[in-house]
Amino acid sequence: GAAPAIVKAQANIRWRLASSFPKSLDTLVGGAEAFAKNVTEATGGKFTVSVHAAGELVPAFGVVDALQQDTIECAHTAPYYFFGKDEAFALDCAIPFGMNARQMTAWMYEGNGLKLLREFYAQFNIVNFPMGNSGAQMGGWYRKEIKSVADLNGMKIRIGGFAGRVITKLGAVPQNIPAGEIYQALEKGTVDAAEWIGPYDDLKLGLHKVAKNYYYPAWWEGSTQFSLLVNNKAYNALSNEYKAIVRQAASDAHVKILGRYDGHNPTALKQLIAEGAKLQRFPKDVMDAAFKASREVYAEINGKNANWKKIYADYSRFQADAYQWQGIAEGSFDQYMASQKL
Amino acid sequence: GAAPAIVKAQANIRWRLASSFPKSLDTLVGGAEAFAKNVTEATGGKFTVSVHAAGELVPAFGVVDALQQDTIECAHTAPYYFFGKDEAFALDCAIPFGMNARQMTAWMYEGNGLKLLREFYAQFNIVNFPMGNSGAQMGGWYRKEIKSVADLNGMKIRIGGFAGRVITKLGAVPQNIPAGEIYQALEKGTVDAAEWIGPYDDLKLGLHKVAKNYYYPAWWEGSTQFSLLVNNKAYNALSNEYKAIVRQAASDAHVKILGRYDGHNPTALKQLIAEGAKLQRFPKDVMDAAFKASREVYAEINGKNANWKKIYADYSRFQADAYQWQGIAEGSFDQYMASQKL
Repeated sequence: GAAPAIVKAQANIRWRLASSFPKSLDTLVGGAEAFAKNVTEATGGKFTVSVHAAGELVPAFGVVDALQQDTIECAHTAPYYFFGKDEAFALDCAIPFGMNARQMTAWMYEGNGLKLLREFYAQFNIVNFPMGNSGAQMGGWYRKEIKSVADLNGMKIRIGGFAGRVITKLGAVPQNIPAGEIYQALEKGTVDAAEWIGPYDDLKLGLHKVAKNYYYPAWWEGSTQFSLLVNNKAYNALSNEYKAIVRQAASDAHVKILGRYDGHNPTALKQLIAEGAKLQRFPKDVMDAAFKASREVYAEINGKNANWKKIYADYSRFQADAYQWQGIAEGSFDQYMASQKL
Repeated sequence: GAAPAIVKAQANIRWRLASSFPKSLDTLVGGAEAFAKNVTEATGGKFTVSVHAAGELVPAFGVVDALQQDTIECAHTAPYYFFGKDEAFALDCAIPFGMNARQMTAWMYEGNGLKLLREFYAQFNIVNFPMGNSGAQMGGWYRKEIKSVADLNGMKIRIGGFAGRVITKLGAVPQNIPAGEIYQALEKGTVDAAEWIGPYDDLKLGLHKVAKNYYYPAWWEGSTQFSLLVNNKAYNALSNEYKAIVRQAASDAHVKILGRYDGHNPTALKQLIAEGAKLQRFPKDVMDAAFKASREVYAEINGKNANWKKIYADYSRFQADAYQWQGIAEGSFDQYMASQKL
């Protein structure tokens, strides 16, 4: 039976987590809160993590600086926000025509992804853990139909991060507009189109009320992985047990965040269609031109960024093999099921 | 700073996990071992789980009985093995033309899946945790080509579990043969075809050496979820911290097992093709006849099994919505990528 014993008690640990996302994204801020709850529960409250939405502790795009400067213990973010510091951040998140969600997770855990990215992040005093994925996103809301790639010429598109470099090659003009201002910009015609995430999050912004054409897929975000980034001093100060708990708590949130998107997007899509959204598939020449442009961008980065070159070589090999298999069992099954009346 | 303190030490906990799988399935037994390692690491070795392959403690198909009789603390299994006890077990695992892996996980965590299955398992003194998925499986190895559904008539097919009820309606004769005997049966022609799992596991059995035609998809296993089943007395005896650790350790293994399949199937498929496997897609009339037969089977079970009826109603509603969305962003992205030379 259990008997009282003298043990060395661990000091209570309090971490602050800075999210790059606003509270309105309950998928993502909710996922960080699930992580925090996991840690609390697994340690009986001896280790807690307080979750702060974007701007509460540091600005949305200031979390990597804050981690480097030991200002916060951890952050939850979409690492491609930091591709301006180094393009390799995007390989922990999303690149145009990149891997889908399952492939990305497999690359992280069974391929060399986590190992290579840990080496990369060490340059920033960071230890990374995959924590969530949105799945394939939607291509956004367009005031006019896109008949061919020529229609993109001169078009102002609100689009996130890395994709801007690719659409610039197609003649479009990428615009960086925060979530809260997208509706007005699209309504007034300051932008011709705006992409955000997918049905569940887009519905909240109400973009379908000002631009009916809802294009798919977001070829720039076949999946978007989110990461828990931990300051390495804070991480290394943890006991082995607490390190294991952080890792497993993040894994559980990784599952739950994608589950939340997959669970809520279907009903949100039905509602969007009922309220007038018109589903449109990008014409093949748009896909092909964007695919070609993305390969040119990667060749350029390969020529000047050693971090990117090393990680991307492994990423693209893994992806090529993965897609050869994806189209067989998984793809043919999904295609058949999506064509049935269920 | 930390100071010694008198706390109530928890007695060490030792659990035994009975797997339904042989050691040769390193994806699955390896996943159970990852779960056990997680628990050990998170508790500093105060809570350990010993993993036993099929037959070591109890037979592969005896794990639910052992849990009900309080003989073991937990098991890792494919619950559809137990559809003879109650068809509802299959809804925690795989049914013909069921959900894909991401949908299944989303249903468990964001839909009503986990809640409904917990209620069901309580009848067996069991608390369940999703722990792994194989993704969409392959349809197996066929000595002769299948030109149409008529070719299945009288064909002896080694096939797992629930699918047998559906293929019987197509005139085929399902055979239940353990993994170790499949190669010989297929070589001798005792069976005309045999399905196992997917490229990585099939390669180990060497089935491509005796039957070249490798059909896809396994419409009976668009995904197969594996479960950690815990005896409820053992579970309820845990502290809240240890309960949280079991849950998170299982979630981490859930991610890793699917990652292992996704990470290894692509290279295994390339090897199988290099060694002569001939990829073949099931003719549409086979898919359509099997789809129709599966719906008949479900209608029959609905009429006589209240457990099934309640859970399946929710499952099928969730699935119908999910596939309406799946074909849009995710499906069109994957289809495009699978058609590119990467």
